[in-house]
Amino acid sequence: MEAITVLDADQCWNLLSESVMGRLALSADGEPEIFPINAYAHNGKILFRTGEGTKLSELAVNSRVAFETDGFTSKIGWSVVAKGHARILTGTKEIQEADQLPLKPWVPTLKMNYVEIDVTEISGRRFAFGPEPDRYPV
Amino acid sequence: MEAITVLDADQCWNLLSESVMGRLALSADGEPEIFPINAYAHNGKILFRTGEGTKLSELAVNSRVAFETDGFTSKIGWSVVAKGHARILTGTKEIQEADQLPLKPWVPTLKMNYVEIDVTEISGRRFAFGPEPDRYPV
Repeated sequence: MEAITVLDADQCWNLLSESVMGRLALSADGEPEIFPINAYAHNGKILFRTGEGTKLSELAVNSRVAFETDGFTSKIGWSVVAKGHARILTGTKEIQEADQLPLKPWVPTLKMNYVEIDVTEISGRRFAFGPEPDRYPV
Repeated sequence: MEAITVLDADQCWNLLSESVMGRLALSADGEPEIFPINAYAHNGKILFRTGEGTKLSELAVNSRVAFETDGFTSKIGWSVVAKGHARILTGTKEIQEADQLPLKPWVPTLKMNYVEIDVTEISGRRFAFGPEPDRYPV
């Protein structure tokens, strides 16, 4: 097994669609931010919910985001990164549709805003764990 | 139990120091990037290794980074975010010292560069999972 395997887009979407948690990276005035989020991926889009706060105000300034989710066992690990633009849902119909999706917040606080990432780029890798090779092979 | 508990700096460092994996967020020309990394946190710093590639070249342009690590059980979750500046180790002595630390790459590929994040800001939260409250309380 190769140490690192590049995953194709279908493999990446399969992994994304099975994930419930990931991390959202934003860039605000050159400063990276990262937040854990519950997310729901389907049809080329990733949906999440958020309350008022840093995430929402930063997204209004710079909508470019990267979302990462990963998993591992003792033998292998994988990571998928999806990039795109985030948009706060504002239409009544799209919010009602989002309400029907299996996207539940884990924490019992109100998160009134739906944010949808329109994914333009997706990449993923699978890692096989093992010992480091010799740095200075003879 | 409160739904969200803010962790103090000591609690955050304890969680960081017990973690072996996290995600590094960078900002390159306003575009957020996110990478999974193996890391070792101690003494106000976070150390990781990387090969040549996107991470390294982006760090050379913008050294501001955010590192996130998290964990969860069926009942609670937690997340710690550390922000600071990343620096590629270049001195022979500091590289030798880093070589002694328990920072092993999981994947058997050569990652020759040590990068150290000098943490200037740390924050963390613990989440208690539960059902969503009524959106429209009577």
